[in-house]
Amino acid sequence: MPGLASTPDPPYTAVIFTSVRADNDAAGYSTMAERMETLASDQPGYLGIESAREEIGITVSYWQTPAAARAWKAVAEHQLAQKLGRDQWYRTYRVRIATVERDYGFPNPT
Amino acid sequence: MPGLASTPDPPYTAVIFTSVRADNDAAGYSTMAERMETLASDQPGYLGIESAREEIGITVSYWQTPAAARAWKAVAEHQLAQKLGRDQWYRTYRVRIATVERDYGFPNPT
Repeated sequence: MPGLASTPDPPYTAVIFTSVRADNDAAGYSTMAERMETLASDQPGYLGIESAREEIGITVSYWQTPAAARAWKAVAEHQLAQKLGRDQWYRTYRVRIATVERDYGFPNPT
Repeated sequence: MPGLASTPDPPYTAVIFTSVRADNDAAGYSTMAERMETLASDQPGYLGIESAREEIGITVSYWQTPAAARAWKAVAEHQLAQKLGRDQWYRTYRVRIATVERDYGFPNPT
């Protein structure tokens, strides 16, 4: 999934998920991460997702409303992934729920 | 700079910078990126930064207030870096300014 998320004019909701992986199960983790990106994109109010990992991982998902972001957190299959994350895959993570109020880019949209 | 940013209780400001690099000048870019992380950390109202790059790059910087984030954008040396970014280093980028309203993590802080 290369390229940047294409989001509408603000305001919208951003969920900033940052994590440090445990040194284990790279294949299982990667499969689940891809599945979660696909599943997220099927949810109501989904706007886009951006993700990269080096020493830390950062995934930012974008949602029409805070309620849409909260509903995604509660999806059963996602809840299972969250539990596996805590039990196995992550040393530590942080979730920040934010409202995007302004944005701009380059090249300027025409 | 491994590990996650340690931020205070919300609200605070997050600047989500996502980009796709042009295929050039890796050394010059890397030197400038490190310099900008150091310079940012010296600014008033700076709270922390998190960064990772694979197909896309994501850097999230955290600030006490929107005004502190805006002041960082205006710092002269940073403005020069932004110009070099547009002229040379980035194929495309997007900047989203957001207010973090809620956060939680794992392990739970004790």
